Amino acid sequence: MNSKFIVIEGMEGAGKTSAITQVVNVLREQGIHNIVFTREPGGTPLAEALRMLIKNGVRKEPVTDRAELLMLYAARAQLVESIIKPALARGAWVVGDRHDLSSQAYQGGGRGIDAHLLQTLRDAVLGDFRPDLTLYLDIPPALGLARARARSELDRIEMESLAFFGRIRARYRALAAEDDRIVTLDATQPLAAVSTALRYQLMQWLRAQALSS
Amino acid sequence: MNSKFIVIEGMEGAGKTSAITQVVNVLREQGIHNIVFTREPGGTPLAEALRMLIKNGVRKEPVTDRAELLMLYAARAQLVESIIKPALARGAWVVGDRHDLSSQAYQGGGRGIDAHLLQTLRDAVLGDFRPDLTLYLDIPPALGLARARARSELDRIEMESLAFFGRIRARYRALAAEDDRIVTLDATQPLAAVSTALRYQLMQWLRAQALSS
Repeated sequence: MNSKFIVIEGMEGAGKTSAITQVVNVLREQGIHNIVFTREPGGTPLAEALRMLIKNGVRKEPVTDRAELLMLYAARAQLVESIIKPALARGAWVVGDRHDLSSQAYQGGGRGIDAHLLQTLRDAVLGDFRPDLTLYLDIPPALGLARARARSELDRIEMESLAFFGRIRARYRALAAEDDRIVTLDATQPLAAVSTALRYQLMQWLRAQALSS
Repeated sequence: MNSKFIVIEGMEGAGKTSAITQVVNVLREQGIHNIVFTREPGGTPLAEALRMLIKNGVRKEPVTDRAELLMLYAARAQLVESIIKPALARGAWVVGDRHDLSSQAYQGGGRGIDAHLLQTLRDAVLGDFRPDLTLYLDIPPALGLARARARSELDRIEMESLAFFGRIRARYRALAAEDDRIVTLDATQPLAAVSTALRYQLMQWLRAQALSS
């Protein structure tokens, strides 16, 4: 089987970190050990510097929605071209903590940025490059944020309103419903149940990939 | 006369700083004292942080052309929306050290980035917002770079090849030739002669604006 790009998506507190660990466990059990991790925004020195600007801003200056979007795509362009594509080309699997679907959900759904602009940027930066599989951890914002807030201070984006996160979830669910490369997992369940469901979905997908290749 | 956005453009060593001083002198003589300066990339705390990343990179990581372009437009989006447009709206004149024409010349001409992508980004970030007047200081790269190198250390972009700067100059000249809001000045002349030419062109333009308003 060719190497694949698998992405974990979902809102704050959905359990992305545990999910990534579970993905790696399953891949290793299948004999796949050459795995590269990425996180977005970030994953290269330049992209991590952009992550800092995106998450914290500079000296309390309000960041315009378009500047935020363009910084996200700058970081993504750098990561895809300098890390993800070269890794896949040399046969490594790539497991990503967020990718383009986050921009569709947060900037498109949450910030209400025009769909045409988002589409254009995605086409310009990614062409037809897409994850082979996206595992979307679905959770109501109130529950996810309560979990996230219990464990850390909030960054600029995490301090947005519940309505903002409601729009993000709605966009995530709408996009997941129309794309069969996105699998939705119910992240309101206890952690062990989410892990079991993720393992089942990922194993099914890996079997289908093996049969079709 | 309504307030205007006047931009100085040109390559390293063309004499942009002296030109900006001269523009301000002429405006003040005309009784215009409410003047905001901008420089690009930069001009806001966030945009200046992006300028550092664009000019110096991070830990010698090669910056992809697309990431560079998207950072430039992120900085421009932030500057235009939070500084330039509000300044013009409250009646201030804006004098810019570089603006979008630099991206057309450096990223389009110099880096060879696809014209469609540049066009799309410009439309997305700027809509039909354009400087009222651009004064382009034209100089052969060998002469400009010799001047620039005599006075400072070189940043990541200034270390590019002479061929790169040759493509930039060609694009500047081509764009200036087709846009009557861009006035080309011969920057190979001695500084005093450039200043005199700039004063003449700017005064002519201001008179035309006064007549048409």
